[in-house]
Amino acid sequence: MDIEKANTEATQRMMEARPVVVGMGKAIDVIPGMRDDLLLHAGPPITWGRASGPMQGAITGALIFEGKAKNGAEAQALVESGAIKLEPCHDHQSVGPMAGVICPSMSVYILENLTHGNKSFSNLNEGYGKVLRYGAYSEEVLERLRWMEEVMAPVLGKAIEMSGGIDIRVLLAEALHMGDEGHNRNKAGSIMFTKNLAPYIVKATDDSAVASEIIQALGDNALSVLNPVMAACKAMVDTAHNIEGSTIVSVMARNGTDFGIRVSGLGDRWFTAPVAVPQGLYFPGFTAEDASGDIGDSTITETAGIGAFAMASAPAIVTFVSGTPRDAINATLEMYEICFTEHKYFTIPPLDFRGTPTGIDIRKVVEKGITPRVNTGIAHKEAGVGQVGAGLVRPPMNMFEEALVAYAEKYGF
Amino acid sequence: MDIEKANTEATQRMMEARPVVVGMGKAIDVIPGMRDDLLLHAGPPITWGRASGPMQGAITGALIFEGKAKNGAEAQALVESGAIKLEPCHDHQSVGPMAGVICPSMSVYILENLTHGNKSFSNLNEGYGKVLRYGAYSEEVLERLRWMEEVMAPVLGKAIEMSGGIDIRVLLAEALHMGDEGHNRNKAGSIMFTKNLAPYIVKATDDSAVASEIIQALGDNALSVLNPVMAACKAMVDTAHNIEGSTIVSVMARNGTDFGIRVSGLGDRWFTAPVAVPQGLYFPGFTAEDASGDIGDSTITETAGIGAFAMASAPAIVTFVSGTPRDAINATLEMYEICFTEHKYFTIPPLDFRGTPTGIDIRKVVEKGITPRVNTGIAHKEAGVGQVGAGLVRPPMNMFEEALVAYAEKYGF
Repeated sequence: MDIEKANTEATQRMMEARPVVVGMGKAIDVIPGMRDDLLLHAGPPITWGRASGPMQGAITGALIFEGKAKNGAEAQALVESGAIKLEPCHDHQSVGPMAGVICPSMSVYILENLTHGNKSFSNLNEGYGKVLRYGAYSEEVLERLRWMEEVMAPVLGKAIEMSGGIDIRVLLAEALHMGDEGHNRNKAGSIMFTKNLAPYIVKATDDSAVASEIIQALGDNALSVLNPVMAACKAMVDTAHNIEGSTIVSVMARNGTDFGIRVSGLGDRWFTAPVAVPQGLYFPGFTAEDASGDIGDSTITETAGIGAFAMASAPAIVTFVSGTPRDAINATLEMYEICFTEHKYFTIPPLDFRGTPTGIDIRKVVEKGITPRVNTGIAHKEAGVGQVGAGLVRPPMNMFEEALVAYAEKYGF
Repeated sequence: MDIEKANTEATQRMMEARPVVVGMGKAIDVIPGMRDDLLLHAGPPITWGRASGPMQGAITGALIFEGKAKNGAEAQALVESGAIKLEPCHDHQSVGPMAGVICPSMSVYILENLTHGNKSFSNLNEGYGKVLRYGAYSEEVLERLRWMEEVMAPVLGKAIEMSGGIDIRVLLAEALHMGDEGHNRNKAGSIMFTKNLAPYIVKATDDSAVASEIIQALGDNALSVLNPVMAACKAMVDTAHNIEGSTIVSVMARNGTDFGIRVSGLGDRWFTAPVAVPQGLYFPGFTAEDASGDIGDSTITETAGIGAFAMASAPAIVTFVSGTPRDAINATLEMYEICFTEHKYFTIPPLDFRGTPTGIDIRKVVEKGITPRVNTGIAHKEAGVGQVGAGLVRPPMNMFEEALVAYAEKYGF
């Protein structure tokens, strides 16, 4: 087995992938394997009983949004009876931030990888505070989701088509030169996304008040582009998955209870371990006591070589996630230790335009005793509350050790 | 004379100024002292005979735009006969990039400093390549100016009013955390400016095609916000001018032939010296042989503590103006040597959020033998061509020496 060759192929594919947002569609219509009785969620597989507060809250909100439940008890009954199934987004070419719940009638961005032809999907970003992805499901949350679904999505989808598509690799490469790291800080990317689409949003509806409102919603949400960025990363890493003999991590994801990884050469098997609680800065009125365990598919950004791996590009992020600008540089430098290569297209100006650390190699993680760094939002541990902060977290080491053991067993080392 | 106290007052005023773009108007209607027979230009006073190629080109273009001349010869005759007068923008609360020509019927941004009440003005940015400010005046240049005047300006002016105004100090503070330095790199600022105005542009016209075109023009021009930024810096430094006893530079400006400075405690006297030619990167097909001497009022950015003084915030700029990211850090560090203070609101993440070097002190410039650094575009030396590159330049030392001598004479040191 030529591991170097396999990892070279995996990482080259990942970097050469060129995902473009080409349109929007209802999840039920466009996501492969989506069904009327199915909810997708972040992270590895989970049951209602083991699900964290924010995950239960988001499932409840999604079932209310679908008109299938009126409250948490009804949602619980539907899921526990098997009338509603739960499956990971990752098994459906999809990703979602935080709870990451995607339901059948929700609109999703459609991304197409121009290099390899695979597609990926993610839902619309709701903004800050009380939002479904953080487990909130009050009437105000649902009203916002309905506005996004009924007013925003049709116009945005049309605008995307009229624009000819938004190349997210190009956008990210530029955003990394504008102080973003692509995960917790997407300020530059979100306003670039907005300014690219705004001229078409104007043309996609006859109602100028609606156009104005949609442009404002996109432009004022510094995470607008997070979901398309996550989907782009999913499209990238999917091309690096199932390369025979590769030790590259192709998925990192958390459901609030378990952290899970997949490894390119080890098929669709999840290696899981209990999540940690992120360390970070809390919003006024909240402390670490309020925090849910680590949650969300957004670790797909680190898996693709951005996010915490590109912290050196985003010194201003420390005001949001804690630490100093020097810590941001060191975060990136440390990640080179466990990565197979440096990115061809994502470069870091303060490091003399060095490529971001790309392709987490489970051999290096275990050998050096360094786990990947992750930037993240922090959800309240109870259903129905929402975001309480943002910070930094590491996945448990034993997943990587187990994956390396499985690799040795499979490939006979 | 308590120089420290005078300089503290000058720099505090400069930093506490809070310029907001509040609307647009025709130069003749809104700029104090603007007259029908007057053109404003960048830098210290100049005559046709001593004017550089790009300055003569821009004057010619402006007179064609005004319907007063048909070509360079007619423009020359009008200016040399005194039928058309030339005066510095700086004497009319105005600034303009490169040739900086503002003519009576041109629309200008109106800025109001909320703290001290003074106003400032600058024209619209035309984008790249063949543009009036670089001395080009072909039919395509004039057609673009007419579109900006007839289509863009009325809608933009209305949108600005509807928005309640764009606070440029806030915008700049954020842009410096997004890889801009506010002079040669205004990528982040320009898309922020666009995303702030786009929702109102949509509402300011019934014609969605026009709204779309204006949003696209603003969003695709990474210098859209340069002119409002320059006007904001003018509003800031104007508050620091005429402070009895202050040794702070309150104007740096070039007309392509002469560099000129003014000093807060020395009134409206210009200290001038011949300009240098910038060192930098040239567009394909051009070399240093093609370059005009240093030109433009945009050095108002450095005078206010951004631009080359904030280079450390903008490591990616070196791909445009030459050098390495380390040079960018060093540029800022060197400027602390000649500045009186550090900015309260403009901070630099890679330097642990240290304030930008602010308030050039002529005593320090002369004593340390360090002239201010300036980032700049480079114009072709002949009228009618346009931009040929971008780079770095320093003002001549003898202006600062002369100013210091004048200071000693006035204040009796």
